[in-house]
Amino acid sequence: MKALVKTKTVRGAELLDVEVPKIGPNDLLVKVEAAAICGTDNHIYDWSPWAAARLKLPRIFGHEYAGEVVEVGSAVRGFSVGDRVAAETHIPCLTCFQCRTGRQHTCEKMQIIGVHTDGAFAEYSLLPEACAWKLAPDMSTELGAILEPIGVAANGLFKDRIDGLSVAVVGCGPIGIFCGQLAQGAGARQLFLTDVNAYRLDLARKVLPAARVLNAVEDDVLGVVREATEGRGVDVAIELSGTQPGTEQAFDMLAKGGRASLVGLPPRPVTLEMTSAIIYREAIVYGSTGRLMWDTWYRVGGLLKAGAFDPMPVITHRFPLSEYAQALELTLSANAGKVLLMP
Amino acid sequence: MKALVKTKTVRGAELLDVEVPKIGPNDLLVKVEAAAICGTDNHIYDWSPWAAARLKLPRIFGHEYAGEVVEVGSAVRGFSVGDRVAAETHIPCLTCFQCRTGRQHTCEKMQIIGVHTDGAFAEYSLLPEACAWKLAPDMSTELGAILEPIGVAANGLFKDRIDGLSVAVVGCGPIGIFCGQLAQGAGARQLFLTDVNAYRLDLARKVLPAARVLNAVEDDVLGVVREATEGRGVDVAIELSGTQPGTEQAFDMLAKGGRASLVGLPPRPVTLEMTSAIIYREAIVYGSTGRLMWDTWYRVGGLLKAGAFDPMPVITHRFPLSEYAQALELTLSANAGKVLLMP
Amino acid sequence: MKALVKTKTVRGAELLDVEVPKIGPNDLLVKVEAAAICGTDNHIYDWSPWAAARLKLPRIFGHEYAGEVVEVGSAVRGFSVGDRVAAETHIPCLTCFQCRTGRQHTCEKMQIIGVHTDGAFAEYSLLPEACAWKLAPDMSTELGAILEPIGVAANGLFKDRIDGLSVAVVGCGPIGIFCGQLAQGAGARQLFLTDVNAYRLDLARKVLPAARVLNAVEDDVLGVVREATEGRGVDVAIELSGTQPGTEQAFDMLAKGGRASLVGLPPRPVTLEMTSAIIYREAIVYGSTGRLMWDTWYRVGGLLKAGAFDPMPVITHRFPLSEYAQALELTLSANAGKVLLMP
Amino acid sequence: MKALVKTKTVRGAELLDVEVPKIGPNDLLVKVEAAAICGTDNHIYDWSPWAAARLKLPRIFGHEYAGEVVEVGSAVRGFSVGDRVAAETHIPCLTCFQCRTGRQHTCEKMQIIGVHTDGAFAEYSLLPEACAWKLAPDMSTELGAILEPIGVAANGLFKDRIDGLSVAVVGCGPIGIFCGQLAQGAGARQLFLTDVNAYRLDLARKVLPAARVLNAVEDDVLGVVREATEGRGVDVAIELSGTQPGTEQAFDMLAKGGRASLVGLPPRPVTLEMTSAIIYREAIVYGSTGRLMWDTWYRVGGLLKAGAFDPMPVITHRFPLSEYAQALELTLSANAGKVLLMP
Repeated sequence: MKALVKTKTVRGAELLDVEVPKIGPNDLLVKVEAAAICGTDNHIYDWSPWAAARLKLPRIFGHEYAGEVVEVGSAVRGFSVGDRVAAETHIPCLTCFQCRTGRQHTCEKMQIIGVHTDGAFAEYSLLPEACAWKLAPDMSTELGAILEPIGVAANGLFKDRIDGLSVAVVGCGPIGIFCGQLAQGAGARQLFLTDVNAYRLDLARKVLPAARVLNAVEDDVLGVVREATEGRGVDVAIELSGTQPGTEQAFDMLAKGGRASLVGLPPRPVTLEMTSAIIYREAIVYGSTGRLMWDTWYRVGGLLKAGAFDPMPVITHRFPLSEYAQALELTLSANAGKVLLMP
Repeated sequence: MKALVKTKTVRGAELLDVEVPKIGPNDLLVKVEAAAICGTDNHIYDWSPWAAARLKLPRIFGHEYAGEVVEVGSAVRGFSVGDRVAAETHIPCLTCFQCRTGRQHTCEKMQIIGVHTDGAFAEYSLLPEACAWKLAPDMSTELGAILEPIGVAANGLFKDRIDGLSVAVVGCGPIGIFCGQLAQGAGARQLFLTDVNAYRLDLARKVLPAARVLNAVEDDVLGVVREATEGRGVDVAIELSGTQPGTEQAFDMLAKGGRASLVGLPPRPVTLEMTSAIIYREAIVYGSTGRLMWDTWYRVGGLLKAGAFDPMPVITHRFPLSEYAQALELTLSANAGKVLLMP
Repeated sequence: MKALVKTKTVRGAELLDVEVPKIGPNDLLVKVEAAAICGTDNHIYDWSPWAAARLKLPRIFGHEYAGEVVEVGSAVRGFSVGDRVAAETHIPCLTCFQCRTGRQHTCEKMQIIGVHTDGAFAEYSLLPEACAWKLAPDMSTELGAILEPIGVAANGLFKDRIDGLSVAVVGCGPIGIFCGQLAQGAGARQLFLTDVNAYRLDLARKVLPAARVLNAVEDDVLGVVREATEGRGVDVAIELSGTQPGTEQAFDMLAKGGRASLVGLPPRPVTLEMTSAIIYREAIVYGSTGRLMWDTWYRVGGLLKAGAFDPMPVITHRFPLSEYAQALELTLSANAGKVLLMP
Repeated sequence: MKALVKTKTVRGAELLDVEVPKIGPNDLLVKVEAAAICGTDNHIYDWSPWAAARLKLPRIFGHEYAGEVVEVGSAVRGFSVGDRVAAETHIPCLTCFQCRTGRQHTCEKMQIIGVHTDGAFAEYSLLPEACAWKLAPDMSTELGAILEPIGVAANGLFKDRIDGLSVAVVGCGPIGIFCGQLAQGAGARQLFLTDVNAYRLDLARKVLPAARVLNAVEDDVLGVVREATEGRGVDVAIELSGTQPGTEQAFDMLAKGGRASLVGLPPRPVTLEMTSAIIYREAIVYGSTGRLMWDTWYRVGGLLKAGAFDPMPVITHRFPLSEYAQALELTLSANAGKVLLMP
């Protein structure tokens, strides 16, 4: 089969002919129909320090995907050939403390598809049954391919309730826009989004016309937020930029007693006035990584079924797998929403 | 001033000329602009055992209202003449355990406006500062007058989150329809409502076109619910009928691990198979009365500001105060949504 | 091996020689060292309607047990020969909605050891890896054998926090006494227990000298509770009797805004004044069955490690397996605490 | 009356004869019987930048106290002359969003006794009724005087449950030791405390003999914690040092999914590797200031009534008010537990 393989410890990747993977007793073999490009894939393609610290080469990468089950392992009980599935990319051990107390997504022995095991920028991919999510019959495979990053947004946003609360999102990439859509779908009182990238600000304004989309540097963000919230600030702030100024802005916007979710991964330490940012404010700060299995998936599925939001406009580009280089360069430029590769 | 007074221990009430009330240091004097009729008012008018056990006559009744502040007591600090306000009808003592731990609405020495103190079917009414809610500038007084019963719905529905969950509401009176609207506004996956009254079923279908509105007796309610929820049942059930069959139906519809809120007040004991209804199901059952002060009000305010629902179509009739008899007979017939009296 | 087998649809059971069970890929074979008698076992021995509705004969019963792993299946990864384990008796399917959202203990396809599969009143017993709990090195096997019913108590009690709250327990059987011990270990303000059985009242008084242990019928239970709680009632009530008067007493004792856990299984419908018992009280009522997997086990393990309680005095009798009839007659009489069978 | 007054913007204070304060309608006049010295009082005495930024002189300081009510305002309903009371030092406005949603302790217009109003290092002090807590009849006034700082500990510790969880406390000052006592009283699995001050380490070891008390710099803190928690780290970490290394240590000790409360006030910004400290760990971080009114007080009261902990040994010194200088120099040296001034 064709597969996009990271073979060398430099920028780039190669489209190679490789063996179709062989399934174990608990695996599904999935014919990949659509795979989305994640920031992680950019790290791998670009061979950042993050990637260099984690990958053993060669490695087929890509992990946000959906497709059809074409073979099932001998011990699989919940899935059949012909099922359409999306992939949860975190592979849990099922036996550690985290896995045994409802936190498989932070398994102490976590493996990640496309990082520690071969992934989905390929015609076929292995999926452990424990990581398979059956698609609703009326859901497109393209939507299935982006359920995983929508889940990242949901995991950050839904640490607690949203109904009637004001929400600010720092970062207008795909996950930021999904956060905004989920917040509106769940009854947020008001929605503010900030970024500094013109493409992403435009996309956010187009997809979320009722929100206040602000340039994080050029606009008077705090002034706007305070004026719109009777001076209190927002009840919920979601930090997706992974930057020092983004993190500061998230706390500056936050009301007393509000909650902040930190989702973006700062590559460097962040310096904060803890006393004013968190302590006197009695903020609740949630670290957020991956997606709660499987509550997040059910919750997103429920909001999609209700028609509470439509994530498809966030998919801005589609490429055949053979044009992977163009697709990855585009996502590295940040001038895109969600980008799909179609094997 | 004109006021509707319960003077005798029989059905009926009288429109009398009485003194405008004199305010104490912590009171507001409110010019009543719209007052809604509650089931409690029907009990009082009809002189039911519930009313007979609680009221000392004469008593001006009515408690769901909004209007303009025309005078403030010497110790009032948060309100001014000219403010437009809605009334929270539960008067807390502010010193008991309930009041001191965030549960003023279940104060151990609770008094109720229009039951224990003179109420709002009158040109002017006294409102303790602790019970006053300032209306947003863009909110109509009519909407202000029904915030209190919307809060009853919110208190029952929002015991926990709703986003992405399926919801069933037993009873399509105004509070049931508000529950449905709030649930949809907060991102409920699916919505089911049941009743046996044709007028109310019609009103629910008109106001909530996306919901499944079912005749509780004639339709195969459980079959519909199970088919639509992959056999699981609903995540949230709200019981508003206060009846034996309504309570049974609420639990029958409920999924394992689901939650039920009991809001309707059964006048007689209810008999339940606890083992199957609650215990093996690991249901969580919430008794719900009044409205959490003031979280419920802020939450409803946030959903209204978001445009997540529009309660105005639930107001089906408006009468001048002088036509009180016609209005009260109409609400007693149950062939109405919310009915307003305009002093 | 020797095994206690239910062979006939009448009172009784037979000690037979049977084959040692053969393990599947995900199973452990456990040499049973201690097994406790549960109320379920009494139902089976006595052949109650509950048992007749559930069991296919012949069936080895018994499910509360601990022992040593003597063989492991080919796919087992978390356990080894020589490990000492206790059994979680609810076998989850791991693929249903309940299992996938942290509620394996209410699996939609639940099977129960000793009811749907052969159990532990035998020299050896099969235990799925998903149901195995490794014993701490310093924990006795006898204590291991009663972790399961302690978990029933913990699941009912720890629906929410206990620290600083007053607690009432209706029923002084072993689970009631465990509830009391766990409540004291977790910092309960005050503890009240009620029963009508003299043996159990005595045992409760002996094991819980700091608690108020009251005869549910002869003592002025409500008077005592109200006097000790400034008239408010208890914050937490645990119903273990499964009776009409016990359920009424649990709610009568409960404070406004308090929570009640229903754990005992009423064989008949219960009739309640919902309005006063639950609704005006804004009670939160939890149905409780089995044990949350595995949070409950970790929590109990933590309290045991802290030395916060000592369940061993609740074990009042030990019998060799051959004296099963005497042991089961004793537990049926209710004049015992926890009773062990030693294969 | 005699009162300790901050009169000049330099180190020190003066014992002066001043007028007994005059009560307003909602005030109590309290004869101060015991007052404890808080870190805030050290700031005021020492005239730190914190104090200089907040106080207008002259000001009677001191705010942790208990005594007897000798006069009540005309509008006071919940207290009488002769009542023994302790003081909540945060004066809420009762009308802002925070106050109206159960968060009076983070009132948007908060005033603090002994900072914004005259305080309690005096023979008499004014106490708003909204800040008064009635002492149980069997509670000593000295214990009453330290309920406020015990509440600081409780507010940080009890953000969620403790039963069966492992707890680490960074800082062995009085609040740190109270945290440890409360944690043990609420059933913590294990307890670790760290500090660098020899006096405080000794005091912690004496008061909490079952805890692991470690020198934060000299001992292998992480090694000890990991070894004792099967490599997982603690479930709960409380940061009281307000320092860069203390904050880092709190997160280093924390398990995945664990929670950290930040209580100590860092005078300078803190720099953190957010990705590893909080995000990948999915930590929940609580800013914590003051005490939840009045849940914290009831919870502490319940644990005291249960005999779950005894805070009295944390009071290490008592001085007459006239020896204020000696007392304040002692607390500034940090070589003391809680120090009382007796007017």
